[in-house]
Amino acid sequence: MNGVHEIAPRSGVAFPLAAGETLTVIDPMGMQVADLVAYNADDRREVISNGRTFDYEETIRLSKGHRLWSNRSRIMLEIIDDTVGRHDFLLTPCSTDTFRIFYPDKPVHRGCFGNLAEALEPFGIGPDAIPTAFNLFMNVPVREDGALSVDPPISRAGDMVVLEARMDCIIGLTACSAYASNGGSFKPIHYRID
Amino acid sequence: MNGVHEIAPRSGVAFPLAAGETLTVIDPMGMQVADLVAYNADDRREVISNGRTFDYEETIRLSKGHRLWSNRSRIMLEIIDDTVGRHDFLLTPCSTDTFRIFYPDKPVHRGCFGNLAEALEPFGIGPDAIPTAFNLFMNVPVREDGALSVDPPISRAGDMVVLEARMDCIIGLTACSAYASNGGSFKPIHYRID
Repeated sequence: MNGVHEIAPRSGVAFPLAAGETLTVIDPMGMQVADLVAYNADDRREVISNGRTFDYEETIRLSKGHRLWSNRSRIMLEIIDDTVGRHDFLLTPCSTDTFRIFYPDKPVHRGCFGNLAEALEPFGIGPDAIPTAFNLFMNVPVREDGALSVDPPISRAGDMVVLEARMDCIIGLTACSAYASNGGSFKPIHYRID
Repeated sequence: MNGVHEIAPRSGVAFPLAAGETLTVIDPMGMQVADLVAYNADDRREVISNGRTFDYEETIRLSKGHRLWSNRSRIMLEIIDDTVGRHDFLLTPCSTDTFRIFYPDKPVHRGCFGNLAEALEPFGIGPDAIPTAFNLFMNVPVREDGALSVDPPISRAGDMVVLEARMDCIIGLTACSAYASNGGSFKPIHYRID
């Protein structure tokens, strides 16, 4: 497909996304999570915020029509299409700590956190500035008593989310590296900028 | 009561809390929220993280026995007592933007965000570094479809939460300024360090 980039399994990228451009994130094989973070390109201390987003959108289930807000209470991205409707904005990118805590028998991987840190470094963004990510296709049910689980994504091959930038952004995006998040196997993520 | 400090209605404070010390936060009149943030006293880029906490504690309903984690995946505070069991870690401190968006007919107040920013400034912590707070006594039910509401706290006069520091911290703490969070009236918050 024209203009489509591939993020290899268990890796990540970062790139500018100008105001008015759209970012299409595609799950090409199904059941694969992509962690997304966003920074104001002109002042990278302004960053996507789950707390501001939950507050202003009045829901933790974000889909078409919802906006993703910054820590400065400004709209960074708007979800203009979504063929899945099940994403997560509660959990942080997986990291070496995640692997040590949740997968003590598996090899430790730097995870989405390490992948984002490397990809964002050329943009002057350090690891402490990586917030809770908007985790596309991630399926985290919340029980009535508040308990969370990480279930396999419900996304199928070709499912996608389209986000329109409402300010000039730097985007970080991964093909997630954690077992539970991706139904036990690691697949690529595709994306396109229009 | 000996050693008890009062936070006046709609204001905030910041103070050091050494590893091993306990912070007791009391709702003296009932139905009053206190927003809490925490930083590593030795490196203030390390900060309390709702995403890491939800991930490692596997719940959004934090109470006695749960730990509050930092963005570097370390335990900052542990909840060692809690007479209420209903708090929020989803929503950001109320701010001028919150008042403009949710209370267009009411006077704009700088809110917990402005109060925290002023209180934290002497510790070298700027407003962009204020994360989603742990909102003691705040009652934010999550419906099955993900929709959030801000209901009156269920805390009654004298209810309290006791947190033990697991590292040297700088704490920011408020008596919350938003109408819905506090059942429509603004009351003080008491705290004690032992």
